[in-house]
Amino acid sequence: MVRISNLQTMTHEMTDQLIVVSLANDGGNEAELTDQKVQSHGWVRTEEQGKETFSIIKQRFTRHVPVKSILCRPDGGAGLAGQKVLIFGWVRTARLQGKGSFAFLEVNDGSCPAYLQVIVDASLSDDLSKLIAKGTCVVVDGCLKLPPQGTKQKIELKVEEVVSVGTVDQVTYPFPKNKPSPEHLRKYLHLRARTSLLQESETRLPFATHSFFQSQSFLYVNTPIITTSDCEGAGEMFQVTTLISATEKLERELMENPPPTEADVEAARVVVKERGEAVAELKSAKASEQDITASLAELANAKLSLSRTVERSRLKPGLRTKDGEVDYSPDFFGRQAFLSVSGLQLESYACALGSVYTFGPTFRAENSHTSRHLAEFWIVEPELALADLKEDMDCAEAYVRYMCTWLLDNCYDDLEVMAKNVDDGCIDRLKLVASTPFVRVTYTDAIELLKEAVAQGETFENQVEWGIDLASEHERYLTEVVFQKPVIVYNYPKGIKAFYMRVNDDGKTVAAMDVLVPKNSLVGAKEKNGMNRLEEIGLPVEPYEWYLDLRRHGTVKHSGFGLGLERMVLFATGMDNIRDVIPFPRYPGRADL
Amino acid sequence: MVRISNLQTMTHEMTDQLIVVSLANDGGNEAELTDQKVQSHGWVRTEEQGKETFSIIKQRFTRHVPVKSILCRPDGGAGLAGQKVLIFGWVRTARLQGKGSFAFLEVNDGSCPAYLQVIVDASLSDDLSKLIAKGTCVVVDGCLKLPPQGTKQKIELKVEEVVSVGTVDQVTYPFPKNKPSPEHLRKYLHLRARTSLLQESETRLPFATHSFFQSQSFLYVNTPIITTSDCEGAGEMFQVTTLISATEKLERELMENPPPTEADVEAARVVVKERGEAVAELKSAKASEQDITASLAELANAKLSLSRTVERSRLKPGLRTKDGEVDYSPDFFGRQAFLSVSGLQLESYACALGSVYTFGPTFRAENSHTSRHLAEFWIVEPELALADLKEDMDCAEAYVRYMCTWLLDNCYDDLEVMAKNVDDGCIDRLKLVASTPFVRVTYTDAIELLKEAVAQGETFENQVEWGIDLASEHERYLTEVVFQKPVIVYNYPKGIKAFYMRVNDDGKTVAAMDVLVPKNSLVGAKEKNGMNRLEEIGLPVEPYEWYLDLRRHGTVKHSGFGLGLERMVLFATGMDNIRDVIPFPRYPGRADL
Repeated sequence: MVRISNLQTMTHEMTDQLIVVSLANDGGNEAELTDQKVQSHGWVRTEEQGKETFSIIKQRFTRHVPVKSILCRPDGGAGLAGQKVLIFGWVRTARLQGKGSFAFLEVNDGSCPAYLQVIVDASLSDDLSKLIAKGTCVVVDGCLKLPPQGTKQKIELKVEEVVSVGTVDQVTYPFPKNKPSPEHLRKYLHLRARTSLLQESETRLPFATHSFFQSQSFLYVNTPIITTSDCEGAGEMFQVTTLISATEKLERELMENPPPTEADVEAARVVVKERGEAVAELKSAKASEQDITASLAELANAKLSLSRTVERSRLKPGLRTKDGEVDYSPDFFGRQAFLSVSGLQLESYACALGSVYTFGPTFRAENSHTSRHLAEFWIVEPELALADLKEDMDCAEAYVRYMCTWLLDNCYDDLEVMAKNVDDGCIDRLKLVASTPFVRVTYTDAIELLKEAVAQGETFENQVEWGIDLASEHERYLTEVVFQKPVIVYNYPKGIKAFYMRVNDDGKTVAAMDVLVPKNSLVGAKEKNGMNRLEEIGLPVEPYEWYLDLRRHGTVKHSGFGLGLERMVLFATGMDNIRDVIPFPRYPGRADL
Repeated sequence: MVRISNLQTMTHEMTDQLIVVSLANDGGNEAELTDQKVQSHGWVRTEEQGKETFSIIKQRFTRHVPVKSILCRPDGGAGLAGQKVLIFGWVRTARLQGKGSFAFLEVNDGSCPAYLQVIVDASLSDDLSKLIAKGTCVVVDGCLKLPPQGTKQKIELKVEEVVSVGTVDQVTYPFPKNKPSPEHLRKYLHLRARTSLLQESETRLPFATHSFFQSQSFLYVNTPIITTSDCEGAGEMFQVTTLISATEKLERELMENPPPTEADVEAARVVVKERGEAVAELKSAKASEQDITASLAELANAKLSLSRTVERSRLKPGLRTKDGEVDYSPDFFGRQAFLSVSGLQLESYACALGSVYTFGPTFRAENSHTSRHLAEFWIVEPELALADLKEDMDCAEAYVRYMCTWLLDNCYDDLEVMAKNVDDGCIDRLKLVASTPFVRVTYTDAIELLKEAVAQGETFENQVEWGIDLASEHERYLTEVVFQKPVIVYNYPKGIKAFYMRVNDDGKTVAAMDVLVPKNSLVGAKEKNGMNRLEEIGLPVEPYEWYLDLRRHGTVKHSGFGLGLERMVLFATGMDNIRDVIPFPRYPGRADL
């Protein structure tokens, strides 16, 4: 039995009934994959009578063959010469040759960082020059062939039919040249993915995360995005509301139909009075029941009209207030609501189902312009019932090392591109973290180590003393200089951590920890049990009644941590700016698309 | 080689280096899983010298053994008699026996629907009555033993140590009795997960979704939650803002420090005038340069003070407006921003990377009080480059059938509970969808079929005529009566679908489709290519410039669909109300926690 070595392979195999493999040259002879071994790079090895052959996997629902499954093979694709394939992709570079009689296109379809060389004869297109503009999309049918000896590529595609072309408007295309700057790319988020700055890791780590926690029998629970709890008791939050649009609608309506004046109200009052008198008159005159009934009906109408007029006369433009505060009763949720800053609600599931995790978007309305902060980002937050801080550290370490191993096993091509273009140390850093048990040191010991460094002449911008929150320079010194390994710092001073952490027996520190890796701090974590600190810290108790209930009814020890996906991608790729590792970055002043 | 039959099994095996198996009785002899076969229910089968044995898997990071790995075995756990285990969980029912000398607890830990019977001797607790309250959490160490013959369970736990107890405040515990109503449970979302109404499918389908698309080489792209595009051009949206809190802050500040009056401004003006005159006097008196400079400085100060006073005098409570509209320039993103109603931005990645999918929360601020609408829900949206509607349908059908198969393979215990308590048809429905190729029928033909039904005496509340949006009663009639199979209806009238769908050659219909299954409509989908309809529909073009750019530069045909996770859970479980299949439902008036 073949020893299956990595996760993606397994993913393929486990859904084998869904993968269709093109084994024959004409692309039409599709066979189920059962009993074949899929390798991680998108090709299939079969052993028949002791002879090893490789076949192409085409996408199941569309007719094309991904460039990855042609080029990312041990033989670079050479073994596929003679096969007919349909491919598509975007032209990165191109040139006309032979006095314009044919074109060489370097085509990338996003399936891997590599480019397939595509050769189009002038006879196949009414205008070859349309095809060679950077950014053009081509869908072409052709035959794979070996290139002339001495050229770099191992295989190329000789086109037999140009199926379709998506041309580029050359005047307005924003990336006509190679290597646009990250700042320039950020202005064109909708086209940015066509450049090689994209990180495969950004699109694949989420699945690695799910795979890790699912394999450990953690249950996935979606905590809400819209929340009425301020989960951290600090930090600016985004408000979620329908009040402003309702207010604007009302204002437009009041402009079109001005509200009744005091005179209008008075006039309505007079009508009511008159109708009332009319009823009284009819009654005293002993009029017919029919007449009295009719008169009473008129009175009722007049009263209704008065009450409506009064109500409308009170309408004012602007947000409605009550006792000087905005009145949220007409808002969608009947109260003030925010975008979540934490998956605190997850604890209610840990206290019912055991080990659980949440993984979704989180928000901060901080006016932060650094290269490491986003207003919207994704965070993984597991919560382990029955776990103390030590077991929580075990889990965090296993998870971080799993992610690093996974990237090395599954995205190596991509990492090589990053190592070449962005940070040549990124692969070594991943290998270090994947292979090295993490050092664990208390905050108090860490401060001592930093003080020793200062005594020996090391200088820090931020002063080192017990009670400070460690600055990035301190964290990097610990991992990069002192230990030269990943480090977990734990038992932080309670004054710098959130209310819900368990206070240690020393009364000064709480059971919290951070995982530090070279260049980055990746994980923040804590053992939960600090509800007695709500009042000590001065938070209101009412919004946390549900949280107190979890302690009142069948409580159990639990611990958890949080890891920001984009921070992990930043670490893995060595990129500088977090705005470049998320597809649609949100930060002060910018929420494009 | 063993034929590995389902996904969860594979997940275990693929991360085998991470699973620790307790093979020995004392729980301390931990061995790596290499070369063993993990079965889906949490137990391990080993073959040694032709003899099959089963062992227990304990959680890796905590010390306990999940109840699932004890009870959910072919032998119901009997083969584990004599093994020592630590377990924890919440008491569902309990009773004192032997005149209070011991207690029987039925304990559930959320790992499976089943309960483990736990026997505690009075000598192990200072007060057994504390343990028997419904909702109590117990952590206990003990020895598994065979129960007396004739009892229902196959194995029980004889406790040797009560490690810890999380008691219940009996006065305030909201679920003292069995079977609280769904409405009652919704009031206590933070404790709801402890009841058997929870659906395992709700916590596991997301991973099945990722597994499906990853196995098909789709890349996962997180589309933004905060958006500045109104993606559907319809429906109420939630606004995301920091303006209201900024306004409130300003109002509080103005209450504390009232703004300058007109008199204050005038006074400041007078000072400027006086200082100006003073400068002029000194100049005409040919005063020393030093005196003139000093006087000029005083004038500058006075001018600065005036401009500040004027600026502050203009501050008004309420939202700042400009030309009668709210001025969003001071808002966090400098413009109006909303919560996403669609992953439309995904198309920019499909037009760069090929087949992609997004899976995340989506929002509707509709004032809808039905049992099928939520203000916040999760949606899967794949986008297939190069695919037309037919291929899109292939993908949607494969995905829906995969999900059904996956649930049957992996959550059967849970489905049985649902079939028993909620909807006895739910398992048969899943089997039907998993095993039956979907019927495909055009909208026009579907209308004809419905008209025929009407002609034969069938009555619908909503009239049947070409051009209507199919109502739920029509959809159910098609799947449940006409075809008795899952149905895909496609090519809808363009008037009832969004602007971005491709108009068919008939000029009347668009390439859109819906997947209908018995009781539910699951998937909505479309081929994208309708930008020429923006103006036809009357939407503003400016916010969609990015979208037009995708057509201007290197465009390629692409199609996609959307499936709401909670709708899928509703279908799978037969539950009635969508508010009961999401952990933290948000709807008009409610956003608890």
